[in-house]
Amino acid sequence: MQDDVLAANEAFYRAFNQKDGAAMDAIWARSAPVACIHPGWNVLLGREPVMESWLGILNNPAQPRIVAGGAAVLALSPDGNTAVVVCRELVAGTPLAATNVFVREEDTWKLCHHQSGPVSLEQVGGPLERARACLAS
Amino acid sequence: MQDDVLAANEAFYRAFNQKDGAAMDAIWARSAPVACIHPGWNVLLGREPVMESWLGILNNPAQPRIVAGGAAVLALSPDGNTAVVVCRELVAGTPLAATNVFVREEDTWKLCHHQSGPVSLEQVGGPLERARACLAS
Repeated sequence: MQDDVLAANEAFYRAFNQKDGAAMDAIWARSAPVACIHPGWNVLLGREPVMESWLGILNNPAQPRIVAGGAAVLALSPDGNTAVVVCRELVAGTPLAATNVFVREEDTWKLCHHQSGPVSLEQVGGPLERARACLAS
Repeated sequence: MQDDVLAANEAFYRAFNQKDGAAMDAIWARSAPVACIHPGWNVLLGREPVMESWLGILNNPAQPRIVAGGAAVLALSPDGNTAVVVCRELVAGTPLAATNVFVREEDTWKLCHHQSGPVSLEQVGGPLERARACLAS
């Protein structure tokens, strides 16, 4: 199960970097309720505003690539249908920490909630190089 | 179910404001895996580092109160044992957006993951008063 959830998490970041709107749409849940909190944004509730926000991000030529790493899976529900991934992100030199909540829909792990927020360099515990090293490990 | 999850969410913020370490400890899951991403912090994984971080926050005399509002429940797993609350927070005039993931343990909703991050004032869509009004509604 953990491998499948991590694969879904990687597919999310791959769709981000490939600016692939169709892949991003396919990654998000269809039956489960959907929400998203981009860094610095307010809560977006519902599939339509969430997908609209992603299309805006993917269609922005100035949007830098994202590097994700250090993913850990929290397997939650006893029925094995819900999991939370916490991971690190690096966008244009800015370290972030993220929550990705997945639900199983028709035997496929789908993203139903994403939050990402900046990590203060003071909290990284050292210079940016250390955050980069951690993400790469 | 939604009312019970919202009550657990309110108990979390009440423990925060009352600086009640025992209540905060009781709110977090014991069987489910636990994680936490405080604003500006890296990912904390595991009950021990998460509770240690909360005790540090609650024992800090300079820690301001938190106002939480606009909570919405995403009911996730088919067995009804997992739910995500997204909400707004206001700490010392700083607007934040938060994710709180709850699991049902022995018929009680327990927090297993929290992430909170700052909302840029530009994204609030107006002056801070608007964020305050939204939180109060």
